[in-house]
Amino acid sequence: MAEDYPLVQLSDDALDVARLMAEERRPGVVIVDEAGHPVTVLPGSQVLRFLVPGYVQDDPSLARVFGEQSAAEACVDKLRRRPVRELLAPKERRSELAQVPGDATVMECAATMARLHSPLLVVSDGDVVHGVITSSRLLHMLLGAPGPPG
Amino acid sequence: MAEDYPLVQLSDDALDVARLMAEERRPGVVIVDEAGHPVTVLPGSQVLRFLVPGYVQDDPSLARVFGEQSAAEACVDKLRRRPVRELLAPKERRSELAQVPGDATVMECAATMARLHSPLLVVSDGDVVHGVITSSRLLHMLLGAPGPPG
Repeated sequence: MAEDYPLVQLSDDALDVARLMAEERRPGVVIVDEAGHPVTVLPGSQVLRFLVPGYVQDDPSLARVFGEQSAAEACVDKLRRRPVRELLAPKERRSELAQVPGDATVMECAATMARLHSPLLVVSDGDVVHGVITSSRLLHMLLGAPGPPG
Repeated sequence: MAEDYPLVQLSDDALDVARLMAEERRPGVVIVDEAGHPVTVLPGSQVLRFLVPGYVQDDPSLARVFGEQSAAEACVDKLRRRPVRELLAPKERRSELAQVPGDATVMECAATMARLHSPLLVVSDGDVVHGVITSSRLLHMLLGAPGPPG
């Protein structure tokens, strides 16, 4: 029941990964280490966190100093030639990796996703990532197609 | 820059809303009150939290007692003829509504999304909801289309 997903290495180019999320409308991507072992899920909000200058995070009204064009340029500059690992939250602030084994039932997946409030589950056995499951995919499996009103 | 979105009322049928999220592959929907004022964002993981029995949340290994078919039936039964308001987390556990005014700049949106770790922003002025913005949409606006390697 897992879906296709882009595997992103810690050393991959941050600008390419951010553009991938933008183009494919992905809420997040799975980051793996050199051995292919899943490290974390990088959500879009974390990429934005990296892009927004610290003084704007402290006082969002300062965001107005950026014109739309200069904001875009600042963001591209900030990501260019950086590895993805620099975008990740520090280890101690990362949430537990939402992960289920390949033979997990739908209810097990739902329980894990609910407990960790994660929009995305990584399906993996040991070092092998099989795919990801989104919350909408899980709801689809649990609820099926709309039927007549019951 | 806001996108189309389904407006969900507190009194709408929970099963219909869960199926909408499943069919349209939405990570969440915006819940509004009778006056159309945004109340909260309901993420898919919260719907799953409502669906998973308490004893399974406490001990996910108990999820194995459900066959796939009986899990699906239990979930449909749990949502049937309930209003959406029963799915929401209690007020004190709800996170701050990620909200920006209609004239917010891209950088302001990014700062708000980054601060609240939200995958979705509600764009609204007073009682009028203009739409929602996803993190991938914001990244698209900030980073544009892939260009030649720089």
